[in-house]
Amino acid sequence: MEINDAHICGRFHQIENDERGSSYSDPTIYGNLNPSKETIEAIIRTLEEGSCNGYAPCVGYEVARQAVATYLSHDGVEFNSKDIILCSGCSSSLDLCITAIADGTKNHNILMPKPGFPIYRTLAESIGVGVKTYNLLPEKKWQVDLLHLESQIDDNTAVIILNNPSNPCGSVYDENHLRAILSIARRYQIPVIADEVYEQIVFPDKKFVSTAALESGVPILICGGLAKRFLVPGWRIGWIAVHDPINAFDDIRSALSSLSQKIIGSNTLIQGAIPDILLKSPQSFHDDMINTLCENAKVAYEAIDKVPGLVPYMPDGSMYMMVKIDLDKFPHFETGLQFIMRLMEEESVFCLPGDCFELPGFMRIVITLPGDIMKEACDRIVNFCNKYYT
Amino acid sequence: MEINDAHICGRFHQIENDERGSSYSDPTIYGNLNPSKETIEAIIRTLEEGSCNGYAPCVGYEVARQAVATYLSHDGVEFNSKDIILCSGCSSSLDLCITAIADGTKNHNILMPKPGFPIYRTLAESIGVGVKTYNLLPEKKWQVDLLHLESQIDDNTAVIILNNPSNPCGSVYDENHLRAILSIARRYQIPVIADEVYEQIVFPDKKFVSTAALESGVPILICGGLAKRFLVPGWRIGWIAVHDPINAFDDIRSALSSLSQKIIGSNTLIQGAIPDILLKSPQSFHDDMINTLCENAKVAYEAIDKVPGLVPYMPDGSMYMMVKIDLDKFPHFETGLQFIMRLMEEESVFCLPGDCFELPGFMRIVITLPGDIMKEACDRIVNFCNKYYT
Repeated sequence: MEINDAHICGRFHQIENDERGSSYSDPTIYGNLNPSKETIEAIIRTLEEGSCNGYAPCVGYEVARQAVATYLSHDGVEFNSKDIILCSGCSSSLDLCITAIADGTKNHNILMPKPGFPIYRTLAESIGVGVKTYNLLPEKKWQVDLLHLESQIDDNTAVIILNNPSNPCGSVYDENHLRAILSIARRYQIPVIADEVYEQIVFPDKKFVSTAALESGVPILICGGLAKRFLVPGWRIGWIAVHDPINAFDDIRSALSSLSQKIIGSNTLIQGAIPDILLKSPQSFHDDMINTLCENAKVAYEAIDKVPGLVPYMPDGSMYMMVKIDLDKFPHFETGLQFIMRLMEEESVFCLPGDCFELPGFMRIVITLPGDIMKEACDRIVNFCNKYYT
Repeated sequence: MEINDAHICGRFHQIENDERGSSYSDPTIYGNLNPSKETIEAIIRTLEEGSCNGYAPCVGYEVARQAVATYLSHDGVEFNSKDIILCSGCSSSLDLCITAIADGTKNHNILMPKPGFPIYRTLAESIGVGVKTYNLLPEKKWQVDLLHLESQIDDNTAVIILNNPSNPCGSVYDENHLRAILSIARRYQIPVIADEVYEQIVFPDKKFVSTAALESGVPILICGGLAKRFLVPGWRIGWIAVHDPINAFDDIRSALSSLSQKIIGSNTLIQGAIPDILLKSPQSFHDDMINTLCENAKVAYEAIDKVPGLVPYMPDGSMYMMVKIDLDKFPHFETGLQFIMRLMEEESVFCLPGDCFELPGFMRIVITLPGDIMKEACDRIVNFCNKYYT
């Protein structure tokens, strides 16, 4: 077997998601970020009431859907329970959305960001749907290269996938940039899947704007879930919110509802607790997480910015920071992957290669760690780079 | 829109699974059958430990897989954790198994029982895989019509689906009959998906035999879960147990593992509790449920057996009883569906039409109700039949 980049990337994913189940991009593994007290209490109450052990409707309990609709209704957006479908995690939401919109037998393709979360490609290709990528611009805070996006659209493009705030970039798009993207979608009459699973996870001076808030006239499927903001990724509660200002999605609503019947919905015990989880977790809980992320981002940025040969890109939200590896300065390594593997071997610091997001020569740093571990990791990266910089 | 049987059947499914989420074939909705105390305690302990909120490996936590392997290892069968994949409910297990084994682009088909659980067809057809049915024989306690099964096999048959104990029949196959079925599978070298989600739910004088216990030489994917025996269908914990005596399933194991990555596994909170749920729920908990089912089956059988024009088939396990409607004796109705709809309208007794299991002229009765409701329902059926019998 020839070991190529794809194999190595697979090995990285394996390392990332080890036997114990701890994933390095899992915010819960270090024990410093935990679900709110209200979340735990809501589950215990639901358990003790004993009324949420049986089958729910495949699209979710009405009260849970209504709670999600209420939670997502802000900044002029209004959802009602009929717009919400609960899924088994946000990846399941994305799966249903891509399957409902794109058809492999019609030679459809989807557009996804580069760098971008690899599951979009996995889900699309598994049903025979093609994948094209549009570039993000690191020097412009990872904004979408609008000209490139437009050039990638063809007659078979079924949907544009947006991810804001972004994994792996940590970027948070402002209203103007989102409007510019949606204006292209409207011009070509292409719907959007907005992966907003990091919604509201933005640093204190930034604002999260949902694509649904912009009155763009573009039909949008918003994907989200409890995983990130409520710190329970293993609980597998995702949702789809259908935003359809021009009534173009009647067939899609019906398709999503049918597709939800394939796995008969998401865990009812958590569903029963959703209203309290979403609506009672206090602002201080959210603020604590944001402060951890923001503090870590500053620590990592300041440390790495001083390292010759590395270029960090300061995030505005989500849980990650991207770093460019200037290979000209590290002649020991032919590729970014080699650099990252040696960093792991010598310093036990694990960064996910940009290759996993289709952008070689970069690495993704996680900023959910406890502060002392974050500092230690940065020190080791500095140490490693000082050793190999030429 | 023309209202045909398919639409009516769809309406029945809708009625069955109403907005509140209560499904009439859901054993938990009447409040008489509840999960064990050990199950509730295990979840609370897992919640309070706080170590099962993050991502698990897509195939499940090692300790949970090991617990399932231990639980399923009896009667000479031995599984280990590597044979187990946890899924989001047993329907998700079936989905993964059918997708791993059958390929729509190769014109594959699957064989499923008639009458049979409709999800097999839904899952297969959604990926372009054909479906053929083999008959069950009501007069022989719903055993498989072996000659018919054999006649339905063709060069494109990818897998035979067995369901034992059966939904909707309530049948429980003995060792000899299972051997006869597996011997056909071996002769034609066709693997088996054994839907054993009602495993161990058999009446006191019957024995559940797993297909894996028979040393048949047939590679088998066993599907099961917590839903029925542990009375938590909404929690969506299913499993696949790979039984591969001839090492024919290496590619299938790998495919199942890849497919599990599409939805990133099942709920981790429940996974953390699986060892206690499976291995500490006491025998008395299981006995209580069996006694309820058995008692209801007797009540319903005795009541309906006396009704002219109806033929009940006494179950040996699972949660259902099938009843044949002799339409010659009910000339008011052209079809069994009309009979069942009128029964619902006039007496508020809801039975699922055999049409939903591809066997018109029958209806499925649920035997999980509290005793007094079971008796009342039977009285109403008797009343209704007396009114329309000619």
